[in-house]
Amino acid sequence: MEDKSEEVKAQKATIVVQSGDMDKLYSALIIANGCLSMGMMVSMFFTFWGLLRLKKGGLEKAPLSKMHYLGLGKWMINRRMKSKNVRSLERLFQDYVDLGGKVLACDMTMEIMGVGPKDLREDLITEYCGVGTYVNEARYSSITLFI
Amino acid sequence: MEDKSEEVKAQKATIVVQSGDMDKLYSALIIANGCLSMGMMVSMFFTFWGLLRLKKGGLEKAPLSKMHYLGLGKWMINRRMKSKNVRSLERLFQDYVDLGGKVLACDMTMEIMGVGPKDLREDLITEYCGVGTYVNEARYSSITLFI
Amino acid sequence: MEDKSEEVKAQKATIVVQSGDMDKLYSALIIANGCLSMGMMVSMFFTFWGLLRLKKGGLEKAPLSKMHYLGLGKWMINRRMKSKNVRSLERLFQDYVDLGGKVLACDMTMEIMGVGPKDLREDLITEYCGVGTYVNEARYSSITLFI
Repeated sequence: MEDKSEEVKAQKATIVVQSGDMDKLYSALIIANGCLSMGMMVSMFFTFWGLLRLKKGGLEKAPLSKMHYLGLGKWMINRRMKSKNVRSLERLFQDYVDLGGKVLACDMTMEIMGVGPKDLREDLITEYCGVGTYVNEARYSSITLFI
Repeated sequence: MEDKSEEVKAQKATIVVQSGDMDKLYSALIIANGCLSMGMMVSMFFTFWGLLRLKKGGLEKAPLSKMHYLGLGKWMINRRMKSKNVRSLERLFQDYVDLGGKVLACDMTMEIMGVGPKDLREDLITEYCGVGTYVNEARYSSITLFI
Repeated sequence: MEDKSEEVKAQKATIVVQSGDMDKLYSALIIANGCLSMGMMVSMFFTFWGLLRLKKGGLEKAPLSKMHYLGLGKWMINRRMKSKNVRSLERLFQDYVDLGGKVLACDMTMEIMGVGPKDLREDLITEYCGVGTYVNEARYSSITLFI
């Protein structure tokens, strides 16, 4: 663990966000912000349904992946989170960007889905790019996740 | 591969268990036990729906993520697994703990879901903790998965 | 990053494919082919619903995980992908094998599901194996994903 190369490697996390589900976005952003606050660099690559959450108004529309588990709906989860002072997706995302996290938007998804930069939250996005950029980030990362 | 730091790194796996689905829990535990039996250290961080499976009686209640695939229901999968001598989730979990695997329970999920330690399988849980503990385990792990 | 052991490590990606959903298979293969085309080695371990996609005719049967998102059905996604020159799953898979990617078929899933080698796309499969083989590939990989 004292080895320099290990220390360099332990500095970075790269997360593919393929899901557009609210609970998975929460997990992704909470992990990402945890990494940033512990001094790591983080890149999130938004693709497929995840990319659609970067559309204007997309974060609020995120559905819950398991709506009927426990009989808890999205409204209830949001209320409980609020009462426990868990930040909203919007706030977590702002924190992520403010802490220096990179947001990579998958350009192939944009083409397939017919989504242009103007449709997206350009204030949050660092770069429009393809899988090559993702691979270059991920191969030197300690933590790699697909969410 | 002969480098010492690589060897240290290759000793650890850290798995986020966000899903509460039976088939995903099987995958997580089979991979985790595989790592342990090959001499690696393993930490599993249970959050969201995964954390709910740590409730008393929670493992038996795990639903199948793709109930209608193949027309195979949960009952059928369980029967086939039994006939092929695949261990039950309960047994796999016990093996995991016996082999020295760590079970981290996400304290934020517990707060949001209104779940206390008394509601959980305390016999299985190593530690109640937050995302910071997860990040510290994951950044020095060779294998990092989100399930 | 200049350290030799880091360079060795950055050469490999290992992906568990547990899902049989079309969009997740696309993500898995696009990432895998991206890694291969950048000079990395890649192993994909097909298990559970992912293994079933290796059955003869299985790729074409892959369902879309979020059929009603956007009102886009599988047919529409396929048409849009075709019009944007995105390769089909079959072509992506052929490219993957041609570029030297390894396809590991989970033997435990085959037993449970009652699937024999003759039922599978033997032209694509490198090896029938268990979790131990997966762990040995993954522990020396830079990128490890569960899809």
